[in-house]
Amino acid sequence: MELTVYLAGQIHDNWREEIKDNAKSKGLPLHFVGPMENHERSDNIGEEIMGEQPNKVFKDEAASQINNLRTEVLLHKSDVVVALFGDKYKQWNSAMDAATAVALNKPLILVRPESLHHPLKELANKAQVVVETPEQALQALSYIFETN
Amino acid sequence: MELTVYLAGQIHDNWREEIKDNAKSKGLPLHFVGPMENHERSDNIGEEIMGEQPNKVFKDEAASQINNLRTEVLLHKSDVVVALFGDKYKQWNSAMDAATAVALNKPLILVRPESLHHPLKELANKAQVVVETPEQALQALSYIFETN
Amino acid sequence: MELTVYLAGQIHDNWREEIKDNAKSKGLPLHFVGPMENHERSDNIGEEIMGEQPNKVFKDEAASQINNLRTEVLLHKSDVVVALFGDKYKQWNSAMDAATAVALNKPLILVRPESLHHPLKELANKAQVVVETPEQALQALSYIFETN
Amino acid sequence: MELTVYLAGQIHDNWREEIKDNAKSKGLPLHFVGPMENHERSDNIGEEIMGEQPNKVFKDEAASQINNLRTEVLLHKSDVVVALFGDKYKQWNSAMDAATAVALNKPLILVRPESLHHPLKELANKAQVVVETPEQALQALSYIFETN
Amino acid sequence: MELTVYLAGQIHDNWREEIKDNAKSKGLPLHFVGPMENHERSDNIGEEIMGEQPNKVFKDEAASQINNLRTEVLLHKSDVVVALFGDKYKQWNSAMDAATAVALNKPLILVRPESLHHPLKELANKAQVVVETPEQALQALSYIFETN
Amino acid sequence: MELTVYLAGQIHDNWREEIKDNAKSKGLPLHFVGPMENHERSDNIGEEIMGEQPNKVFKDEAASQINNLRTEVLLHKSDVVVALFGDKYKQWNSAMDAATAVALNKPLILVRPESLHHPLKELANKAQVVVETPEQALQALSYIFETN
Amino acid sequence: MELTVYLAGQIHDNWREEIKDNAKSKGLPLHFVGPMENHERSDNIGEEIMGEQPNKVFKDEAASQINNLRTEVLLHKSDVVVALFGDKYKQWNSAMDAATAVALNKPLILVRPESLHHPLKELANKAQVVVETPEQALQALSYIFETN
Amino acid sequence: MELTVYLAGQIHDNWREEIKDNAKSKGLPLHFVGPMENHERSDNIGEEIMGEQPNKVFKDEAASQINNLRTEVLLHKSDVVVALFGDKYKQWNSAMDAATAVALNKPLILVRPESLHHPLKELANKAQVVVETPEQALQALSYIFETN
Repeated sequence: MELTVYLAGQIHDNWREEIKDNAKSKGLPLHFVGPMENHERSDNIGEEIMGEQPNKVFKDEAASQINNLRTEVLLHKSDVVVALFGDKYKQWNSAMDAATAVALNKPLILVRPESLHHPLKELANKAQVVVETPEQALQALSYIFETN
Repeated sequence: MELTVYLAGQIHDNWREEIKDNAKSKGLPLHFVGPMENHERSDNIGEEIMGEQPNKVFKDEAASQINNLRTEVLLHKSDVVVALFGDKYKQWNSAMDAATAVALNKPLILVRPESLHHPLKELANKAQVVVETPEQALQALSYIFETN
Repeated sequence: MELTVYLAGQIHDNWREEIKDNAKSKGLPLHFVGPMENHERSDNIGEEIMGEQPNKVFKDEAASQINNLRTEVLLHKSDVVVALFGDKYKQWNSAMDAATAVALNKPLILVRPESLHHPLKELANKAQVVVETPEQALQALSYIFETN
Repeated sequence: MELTVYLAGQIHDNWREEIKDNAKSKGLPLHFVGPMENHERSDNIGEEIMGEQPNKVFKDEAASQINNLRTEVLLHKSDVVVALFGDKYKQWNSAMDAATAVALNKPLILVRPESLHHPLKELANKAQVVVETPEQALQALSYIFETN
Repeated sequence: MELTVYLAGQIHDNWREEIKDNAKSKGLPLHFVGPMENHERSDNIGEEIMGEQPNKVFKDEAASQINNLRTEVLLHKSDVVVALFGDKYKQWNSAMDAATAVALNKPLILVRPESLHHPLKELANKAQVVVETPEQALQALSYIFETN
Repeated sequence: MELTVYLAGQIHDNWREEIKDNAKSKGLPLHFVGPMENHERSDNIGEEIMGEQPNKVFKDEAASQINNLRTEVLLHKSDVVVALFGDKYKQWNSAMDAATAVALNKPLILVRPESLHHPLKELANKAQVVVETPEQALQALSYIFETN
Repeated sequence: MELTVYLAGQIHDNWREEIKDNAKSKGLPLHFVGPMENHERSDNIGEEIMGEQPNKVFKDEAASQINNLRTEVLLHKSDVVVALFGDKYKQWNSAMDAATAVALNKPLILVRPESLHHPLKELANKAQVVVETPEQALQALSYIFETN
Repeated sequence: MELTVYLAGQIHDNWREEIKDNAKSKGLPLHFVGPMENHERSDNIGEEIMGEQPNKVFKDEAASQINNLRTEVLLHKSDVVVALFGDKYKQWNSAMDAATAVALNKPLILVRPESLHHPLKELANKAQVVVETPEQALQALSYIFETN
């Protein structure tokens, strides 16, 4: 039994690689998916496919169509969603993906520093598991496969 | 036919009152619901009901249980959700409520200043309607009832 | 027990009025809803609410947001959907509303002249009832309420 | 991870072959399905299986049973639906398949020339992605699999 | 709180009237619906609305469209379904309505003489309650409203 | 807006009356439903309706049919479920009703003395709100209706 | 792409073998499942597993538990359901399985002699395809896999 | 066709091993999953991952997050659920898992000594199969795969 895990959250550092390497070294049967991590490409993908748009709002609208296509397909293929929040960036996409996971009955593992407990308290309450580091999220995933 | 509308978003100014007054003066059959708007009470409701908690994280956890109970019940009773975003505050609850509405097949009207188009582009793409002011959101709601 | 009926189809003649008058004269407990029947207003509603758009495509995109909001809310409130097809116009919205009704498990009554049986054969197969006139559609609705 | 893609739309030229060849040459893990592309066989399949019918309407009814069986099974097996619209033909089946995909929560990629933006504006608004060529649809599908 | 109850089963004697009278005399807040009980009208309703059909099979096909429209609308409005089986008639419609109720998560009360226990054993196993007389079915419905 | 609340739990003391009286005195628009509270009648209802059974197991099987009919109908009508656990009795029905509520997306308020926190920890984790007294459960329900 | 097909209907002759052999000789990727075809074993399976029962009704109740377990598991695994009706036997299980398939959105192929068109007209109307022989049902299944 | 079976129930003796060995010796294509059977580890898993908690209640809350993550993921992957009840322990988790299975439309096999028939009568009524030993549960599972 393999599980597919969607990794939602910011795309500005390599937190996803750490989780993937960690899972690999533990030999866990996990398949990871997630958003496009190349930020520039993610912003330009609309114009790359549909051509130049009249202004910035419409450029964004074009890009969001393609980014949401990706997320929607991959989220539906997932068994569990991990959502990471940090101090920087607005992270509304992370909140959106996390809430969508909950509404689709996909268990959510929320990763956030304790300093953010207050603004994330309602989302934390909806998550199945709340931890502070990606390492802990992987421990929780690992527990699913353990036998005594 | 009356419609129930959930008004998601920050609770620091009276934008909800404007919409409600506006709807009333137009005679629209709209019933509005939303989160607890008294911020202090919203933060303290957990300890008010469950007693003092060991620390701030657990105080927040208690409050979020009750706040989410309210949101969940009212969101399920709603026909449409309006979510307002502005320049201030993290607004992760707003993003969470908006995404939950979409996943529950409740049409979402997103209200945000054009200056926020970039960080909200994926959520905008999921919304049924995207406007810049609560006034415009009400015009869209009004259109549902119009006959020639 | 009152039933809500969505009347999908072209908005260029008064076929809806005939059904409504007919239902009234028979004293049937039917509540009718449907799309905006003022064609010009339906095309302009986007710019009316959101302001002028950069070009025709974006004007249409704005209008469709509001028109779909209306349809989505009203379709979810309906118990039965009647979709009328005729010789004129592309009527892709009618096909879209009809198929959405079927997918939402709302029984569909398809009204079309026999001359259109071929291009509509797959949609006819998905409909619960297929007739040729709005009068017949109303007879079928009336049958739901009859007792011996 | 392989994705199954349903290609809805007219069956009068070889646009499906172009997409399939293109996907093959890019090495994408896509499996394509769709309607019977032999038009004559699609029209006759009812009588071929059920024998001669009393008249044209019933011949069509028989054929549509079998064509819808095929579409329903294949659409349920799909992860994404691509629907192509052009200047010719009524294309009500395309509209029906596209709307069914949306109602089943299958992401829809709408392909249509800009000249058709007006009559398709409401369907476009429901689609996850709107482009003008099959080539662009494939680019969007390809983006789902890309890693930085 | 009023409950709507669909009464499925043969239409050849007045068992439905007994239940209705009984409920009335007990003052229970039950609203009863069901199939057209005038057998001849039920068989002819297709031709009555759609005109003469080419042969008996197509006459039946036309009638079944309208009868199923009625059943589908009323079954969706129901909170509980009562299905009565007896020694006579094929009663495939009764079995179909009963199984549809179960699949729609509507609790099913099966009424059948003990002599039929063998051929109905699998349906009995799916029913929420199995009794032998309409009187007993009403007792079960009455129990829902009782307080100590 | 009135809410219907199912009160799950033991039927050996009058905790439900306290909640109802309390709600009444606060003027809250709550409608309460629940299981048959007359224990003896609940055990005998099967034989009362279906006649004497061959042994105790079958007597219980008959009773459970009718008790589950009641619970199923009332649970589907509810907006919120309150489940109370105490030191006495097996309370497997309470656990069953509570878990059913969660699976049906009805928010669950779990009421239990702190002494039971260990054996109920997994159910507590699934509940929307966890409190120690019926009084607190009502405070949480009251909060749904409060406006600043 | 392999499809799983549930074959519902009487178990008194070898019609299932004909379909399976036919599919094999055509090389179709179909996997067939269905009820226990050994009638005696199907009737005794309850007592075989649970031991002797107090009387025939309870023997039947025990058997139906196990038979329905089998049907439920296999029906959920199926992509299409074929239901065969003939002149003999009550066939209420066939009607039940057919209606369950429809309610679960599994396409249904109904096989019945034309002589039975009248009592099966409502079920026929719910089926996706109606034919007279198992051979024809297989032709319809074969069509799903054909390419031009 | 392989089936995944979730084994719910107490973790204090080796009943799961017996079933697994038995299935293996019969060569049945069954894949078994279930809760963490190491009781101590199950109680400590929260603190193991999240660190020390302020008190016992919060230690339990942390553990239940991780245990429910495991159950939720594995239950969704299952085709059938077996729930065993015995004389000892509160077994509220067993009741919770069993009821969740029923609400998710997963067939439930309930295993319990006849001495417990009374307190489990409502859960027994919701189960698809009720037996007294794990051996019998396996016989029922075996029957799904048998051909004449």
